[in-house]
Amino acid sequence: MATVDDGTLALAKEAQDLLFRSARTANAFTGEPVTDDQVRAIYDLVKWGPTAMNNQPMRLVLVRSPEARERLVAHMTDNNKAKTAAAPLTAIVAADSGFHEHFPTTFPHKPDAREAFEDHPGRPQIARFNASIQLGYLILGIRAAGLAAGPMAGYDADGVAREFLNDGEQAVAVVNIGRPDPAGTFPRLPRLDYDQVVTTV
Amino acid sequence: MATVDDGTLALAKEAQDLLFRSARTANAFTGEPVTDDQVRAIYDLVKWGPTAMNNQPMRLVLVRSPEARERLVAHMTDNNKAKTAAAPLTAIVAADSGFHEHFPTTFPHKPDAREAFEDHPGRPQIARFNASIQLGYLILGIRAAGLAAGPMAGYDADGVAREFLNDGEQAVAVVNIGRPDPAGTFPRLPRLDYDQVVTTV
Repeated sequence: MATVDDGTLALAKEAQDLLFRSARTANAFTGEPVTDDQVRAIYDLVKWGPTAMNNQPMRLVLVRSPEARERLVAHMTDNNKAKTAAAPLTAIVAADSGFHEHFPTTFPHKPDAREAFEDHPGRPQIARFNASIQLGYLILGIRAAGLAAGPMAGYDADGVAREFLNDGEQAVAVVNIGRPDPAGTFPRLPRLDYDQVVTTV
Repeated sequence: MATVDDGTLALAKEAQDLLFRSARTANAFTGEPVTDDQVRAIYDLVKWGPTAMNNQPMRLVLVRSPEARERLVAHMTDNNKAKTAAAPLTAIVAADSGFHEHFPTTFPHKPDAREAFEDHPGRPQIARFNASIQLGYLILGIRAAGLAAGPMAGYDADGVAREFLNDGEQAVAVVNIGRPDPAGTFPRLPRLDYDQVVTTV
């Protein structure tokens, strides 16, 4: 697993470590709360990540009340229930198929963009694709705040949508957020080698 | 557009700017080449970003030869042809539905994982979802190298797959990479406000 770390990157070593090399998916957290100010700072960073036509379909539902957490846990798969019940904060990451409603603001130089997408059958898929890219930004943004993310794909998407989302929104992931408890960090798993991933033509 | 930038984040201001705040999608580039060492350094950073079951489905095809570039440009939509023809480097980002073949290496603590996914009908969708998250990491990784990314969704996905990808792989995006020419950077578009994106329950 040879790595190149000889100054080829412009990003400072500390930032590389914070976001990628030392950061780890967390399955347990300390009791320290995650504040709205922290979430606001994370969003105010990751919102700048690019999306297609600046469509920004990602939506976040912060699950804070005990009652809401209980409703969410009921829709998580068994292996995700305990850690979701215990996390300082859990965010439902959703994709809004109604992203085109914002085009007059978000893509103002093309005044007919909203209308052009009104009957576009691909909106749910476009929303999901771009919200997934934004999920990548979000995971790194959580780490940028000095916190750890625990993204989960194991949940009943229909149940989560029915309980928590608006019409036209679909669940993309559920992410636990907090200060990591080292006891809940699994051993680092191997990554594919460059030559397994990258080809040149 | 109030922002929180008061030290709530652990990530250094310079890194925030490099990855998110100052970085921009590029539509034109200087003639400076993008080397294999740079791509290797980018991959060796972004490979650490998490994926579901560590499945790492993202594959990259670096389009370097004039002949391959010509074949790719033919499959780009008209608005993407000229900039793809001129970019120092273009990467086809693909999702490999055969990610489970690597589970003996990438998810070794669950020895039956490969077999369990052999007949799983959701593999193409799982691959696409996780490769899309990895595309988010990749765009930031390109910026971490001091370069700019120009991700594009406008291309004939079937044509690109037929020309450049292996069986079981699907195109997720085509990304131009290089040192940005300021003339090819459009005015910054507005982002949605926190309250348009985040709700609390």
